[in-house]
Amino acid sequence: MFAVRPIGTLHTPWRSLAECPRNGRQPDPTPLCAAVVLAEFVDALQSIAGFSHLILLYWMDQVRETQLLFTPPFDAHPRGVFATRGPWRPNPIGLSVVALEGFATPDTLNVRYLDCVDGTPLIDIKPYLRTTDCEPAAEMGWLAPHATRTRE
Amino acid sequence: MFAVRPIGTLHTPWRSLAECPRNGRQPDPTPLCAAVVLAEFVDALQSIAGFSHLILLYWMDQVRETQLLFTPPFDAHPRGVFATRGPWRPNPIGLSVVALEGFATPDTLNVRYLDCVDGTPLIDIKPYLRTTDCEPAAEMGWLAPHATRTRE
Repeated sequence: MFAVRPIGTLHTPWRSLAECPRNGRQPDPTPLCAAVVLAEFVDALQSIAGFSHLILLYWMDQVRETQLLFTPPFDAHPRGVFATRGPWRPNPIGLSVVALEGFATPDTLNVRYLDCVDGTPLIDIKPYLRTTDCEPAAEMGWLAPHATRTRE
Repeated sequence: MFAVRPIGTLHTPWRSLAECPRNGRQPDPTPLCAAVVLAEFVDALQSIAGFSHLILLYWMDQVRETQLLFTPPFDAHPRGVFATRGPWRPNPIGLSVVALEGFATPDTLNVRYLDCVDGTPLIDIKPYLRTTDCEPAAEMGWLAPHATRTRE
């Protein structure tokens, strides 16, 4: 086992798992959210301003159980949780590719495209690199017929 | 603090952090790697075969310290670790977008584009979704002049 420590907190409009959208690009319009970094980690944000997109990792602390197989609400078959983005994972780590909309204060990033519960602990921030993170031709398996629209 | 448990192990050709490539798309040719899932989690792989790409999260257990600011070897300025993909993070979680090349055995995925040390603990597998994970126009900030080539 390894110990993960929060590096900050995410702020969103959603108060429970049930209120969260299916993904952060689904609401129209997409709300402005915030990532607040603990004072001890603010130095680690240096040079982040030039990136248009970030990858945020967070600990979905509202999740109380693991479901290795479950039937998504929009599907008719049980799916392995590693073939889904659902929260019932062995390690409830969520991942969102967000748009960085600047700093609200030196410890607070304004971001768009989050889909998690308000108050979710943030555990990592990474710059999004189109050279290694972007696969426009990726095939989406069983999720292909259920894909949400892509914003252009 | 939250407890992360390994769900499996990654196998790569690299035996130390110093041997690892800058990213998993840099070696030419890119070696075939493996993600071996613990028996208790194999059910969670159901329906994963149709995805061409996955996001793997892993715990970089060779990393012994956090560096909030460091000067990358190919750069002249100190950068905040959250503006880099370096391993010296408060939570040493690595992320790779990999190509899924099929199953070697029911518990072992063949993948390409890993860049971590052989034996690294795997902590999550997510399907890569081009509708939410792909941002082809993303700006790369201070890393833009250092970008590695993109394979077409």
